[in-house]
Amino acid sequence: MKSKKDLLSILDIRDEIPEILDLAIKFKNDEITDKPLEGKSLAMIFQKSSTRTRVSFEVGMYELGGNSLFLSSSDLQLFRGEPISDTAKVLSRYVDGIMIRTFEHQDLVELSNEADVPVINGLTNLEHPCQALADTQTILEKKGSLNVKLAYVGDGNNVCNSLLLISACLGMDISIATPKGYEPDEDIVNEAKSISKETGSKVQITDRVEDVVSDADVVYTDVWVSMGDEEEKEKRRNDLLKYQVNGELMNLASKDAIFMHCLPAIRGEEVGSEVIDGSQSVVIDQAENRLHAQKAILYYLMK
Amino acid sequence: MKSKKDLLSILDIRDEIPEILDLAIKFKNDEITDKPLEGKSLAMIFQKSSTRTRVSFEVGMYELGGNSLFLSSSDLQLFRGEPISDTAKVLSRYVDGIMIRTFEHQDLVELSNEADVPVINGLTNLEHPCQALADTQTILEKKGSLNVKLAYVGDGNNVCNSLLLISACLGMDISIATPKGYEPDEDIVNEAKSISKETGSKVQITDRVEDVVSDADVVYTDVWVSMGDEEEKEKRRNDLLKYQVNGELMNLASKDAIFMHCLPAIRGEEVGSEVIDGSQSVVIDQAENRLHAQKAILYYLMK
Amino acid sequence: MKSKKDLLSILDIRDEIPEILDLAIKFKNDEITDKPLEGKSLAMIFQKSSTRTRVSFEVGMYELGGNSLFLSSSDLQLFRGEPISDTAKVLSRYVDGIMIRTFEHQDLVELSNEADVPVINGLTNLEHPCQALADTQTILEKKGSLNVKLAYVGDGNNVCNSLLLISACLGMDISIATPKGYEPDEDIVNEAKSISKETGSKVQITDRVEDVVSDADVVYTDVWVSMGDEEEKEKRRNDLLKYQVNGELMNLASKDAIFMHCLPAIRGEEVGSEVIDGSQSVVIDQAENRLHAQKAILYYLMK
Repeated sequence: MKSKKDLLSILDIRDEIPEILDLAIKFKNDEITDKPLEGKSLAMIFQKSSTRTRVSFEVGMYELGGNSLFLSSSDLQLFRGEPISDTAKVLSRYVDGIMIRTFEHQDLVELSNEADVPVINGLTNLEHPCQALADTQTILEKKGSLNVKLAYVGDGNNVCNSLLLISACLGMDISIATPKGYEPDEDIVNEAKSISKETGSKVQITDRVEDVVSDADVVYTDVWVSMGDEEEKEKRRNDLLKYQVNGELMNLASKDAIFMHCLPAIRGEEVGSEVIDGSQSVVIDQAENRLHAQKAILYYLMK
Repeated sequence: MKSKKDLLSILDIRDEIPEILDLAIKFKNDEITDKPLEGKSLAMIFQKSSTRTRVSFEVGMYELGGNSLFLSSSDLQLFRGEPISDTAKVLSRYVDGIMIRTFEHQDLVELSNEADVPVINGLTNLEHPCQALADTQTILEKKGSLNVKLAYVGDGNNVCNSLLLISACLGMDISIATPKGYEPDEDIVNEAKSISKETGSKVQITDRVEDVVSDADVVYTDVWVSMGDEEEKEKRRNDLLKYQVNGELMNLASKDAIFMHCLPAIRGEEVGSEVIDGSQSVVIDQAENRLHAQKAILYYLMK
Repeated sequence: MKSKKDLLSILDIRDEIPEILDLAIKFKNDEITDKPLEGKSLAMIFQKSSTRTRVSFEVGMYELGGNSLFLSSSDLQLFRGEPISDTAKVLSRYVDGIMIRTFEHQDLVELSNEADVPVINGLTNLEHPCQALADTQTILEKKGSLNVKLAYVGDGNNVCNSLLLISACLGMDISIATPKGYEPDEDIVNEAKSISKETGSKVQITDRVEDVVSDADVVYTDVWVSMGDEEEKEKRRNDLLKYQVNGELMNLASKDAIFMHCLPAIRGEEVGSEVIDGSQSVVIDQAENRLHAQKAILYYLMK
C-alpha cells in the first residue's frame, strides 16, 4: 500500500474537504505567501484541450514556488502505445505529482495505481473534482454558507457527478434536472444518497426542470456537447432543449440566486446570454477560484 | 475606464518610446539585475507559429523573475468557439499580462477591451510594435542616432506599418518602396504623416525602389509571403520581383548602410544571400534586441 | 574556433566520461544542492515526440535553478524553411544551451557548427549519448563496476552506437548481436574497435544471439521499429524475430544478470513481459538515471 494521497474523486478527500476549502480561501486572501512547493515539479498530462485547467494549474504551481510541465498527447509517447504503467512509474521518478485530463476514468485509476506520486484528476468522463471544489468555494463566498439549494440543470455529466458528491459530503442540498437518459452516473447517485443520509443533504434527481430551479439559491449548468460527444451533437441539442437556463427559467429561482457555469459556455444553447452575461452570473469569479482551490489541492497533496 | 496599459500599436506608447528604448539598452548592458516581475505570470497566446517572439518573451519573463505560459491554438479552447471576451476575463484572473500573436488586429483590440491586465501585440495583420522597438534599438546601436534615412523595401506589411509609425513618432526619416497594391495601411500612413509634421520626420511612400534605397543608412525588407498569404504565393513573388534587396540594389545605399530583416528570411526571394549573409547585415543583432526591447516592454507594462 | 563544448557524440566527452558519471552519482545522492544554472535558459527542440528526454531535461534544468523552453516542430519556424544556421545564431543570443532531438545527425552537426552555445544531442539517427551515460550509471549502480560483459541484442540503432562507443571508451566489454543488415554504424564500429585497443574493451559484433547473451552480466535491447522506420514495420519484425529477449534467452545470461531497455518498450516484440516486468529488469531505475546523468551533462556544459 502506497502512502501517497490522490485526488481521483471527491470521495478521496471526503473528510478533508473543509480543510482544503479553508486553505483555498487563505490562498485567495494571500494569507499563505511562502513557497511550499519549491523544488517540486508537477507533470500535467492533457489528452483534451483546456484553458482554465491548464493555466490555473500552471500559475498555481509557479505561485507555490514549484515547476509544472505541460504534456499534451501530441508531445507524449504515453498515447502512442506505451502502457500507462510504464509512464506512471517513469514519471514518478522525475516529478512530485501528476495531473491528468483524460477521457476514460479507468485510465486515471490505472495511472494512480502505478504511480508513486500523488495523482490529480483534471477531468475524466466520470468526475471533475477540482471544479467542484472551486464551485463550492464560490458558493461559500457568494452565499455566505452552504446552507443553500443548488440546482443543476442539463446534462448529468462529470461536473454534475462531482457536484453531487461534494454536496452530499458537505450536507448541501442538490436538485438535479436532466432529460431521461442524461442522468448522472448511477453508482455515484447511490453513493451520494448513502452519504447524504449521514450528512443531512437533500438529494433530488428528476427530469422536471421547473421543480429543480424553483427557489434554488444556485443555478448551475454546463455545455450539452462535451469533448468526446461531438458525434451525437444534434440529438443532444434536441433532447436538452427544454433545459436551457434562460431568463424565464432563472426567474423561478430565488430572487438573489446566482448563476454558475464551469465554462466554456455556448450562449444560445445551454444558457442564454441574458443569464450568463447578466448580474446574477458569477462565472468569472468561479473560474478564478479554480486557481485558489487547486493551489489548496496541490499544497495538500504535494507539500 | 481601466487603468491598465496595453501595447497594441506603436501609438499606444507614443510618448514613452524613448523611455522604453532607454530601458532596453539598460537591460542589454545588464544594468538592471533585480527580478522586478517575480511572482508574475504572462500568458502567451500563439495562433501562428513563431521562433523569435516566443523564445524572446519566454526567456525575457524568466530573466525578469517571472513566469510565462506558452498557449498555442491547438492547446487552447479560445479558438474552439469560446468568445474572446470570456477568455480575456478568465485569463485576467490567472495572469498579470497577455501577449498574443494572432491574425486579425480586431481580435487583439477585443481581447484588450475585455482584459483587466496589460495586453501586448506579438504580431497581427496590422502591426508588429515589439519588432519596431527592437529595430529602433538596433539602429541606435549601429548608427549612433536616429538621424538616419531608413529605407523599407518590398511588402508594406505589419512590420512596415509599425516601422512607419515609430519613425514618425521619433522624427526618423523613412522611405518606403512597394509595388502598387502593396502599400502600407492607408490609415496608418495618414496617421504617420500627421505625426511627422510635428516631429519633423520625412515620410516618403513610392513604388520606385531605387529612389528609396539611394543614400539610405538602413535598408530593411521582410518576407514577401507572410503567414496567411500562402494562397497568393506566385502572384506576390511576381509582383515583388524587382524589390529584391540584392548586392546591386544595396550598392545604391550609403556606403556604410546596414541591412535589416526581422526574420525568417528566404534567400533568393526578398533578399540575396550576398546581402543578408554579408558584412552589412545586422539581422542577428536585430533579433537579439527583441529580447532586450521586450524585457523593457514587460517591465514597463507589468512591473 | 569556438570555445564552447558540445555533446553530439560520446566521442565529444571521451576523456570526461568518468567525471560526468561521478557528477551524475552526486546529483542522485543529493550531494549538489546549489542552483548552478540560475538565470540560464535551455532551448529544447523536438522533431520527434518524447517522454523521458523531455521530462528529464525539463525537470533537470529546474532543479539546477535554470529555465527550459519546450520547442516542438509544430511551434517552431525552424522546420518551415528557415535555415538551421539562422535558428542556431538567433537562439544563441537568447539561450545558454540547446538540446535537440532530430532525425538527421547531420542537422545536429550543422546546428552545433553555427551555434555559439553548447548543443546537446537528445537523439539522432546516429547516436543517443545521454542515454548511454544514464545506462552506464545504471550498470555501475547495479553491478558495482564496469568490469562486466554487456550484451546488446536486436537492432543496431542509435542507442546501440552510443553504447558501443561508451563501452570502448571505458574499457567495458560489449557483445552485439543483430541480424545481417541491422549492424551498428560501420564508422562507429571502426572507431570503437580502434579505441578498444587502448582501453582493453572487448568488442564483438555478430548475428549469433546465443553467443552474445551467454554469460552476459547485462542484457540490453531496444524497440525494433524506431520513429522514422514505421514504413518497414513488417519486414523489421520478421528479420528481428529471433532476437527477442524472452525468458528462454535470458536464461543463457549470467545468473544475476540485469535486463536493460531505454523505453518505450513493446512487450511481445523485442522483449517478453516475463523479462521486462520480471525481477532482473532495471528499466525504471535506468529511466530515472536519465535525470541525474543529464543534470551532470547540463552542469558540465553550461555552468
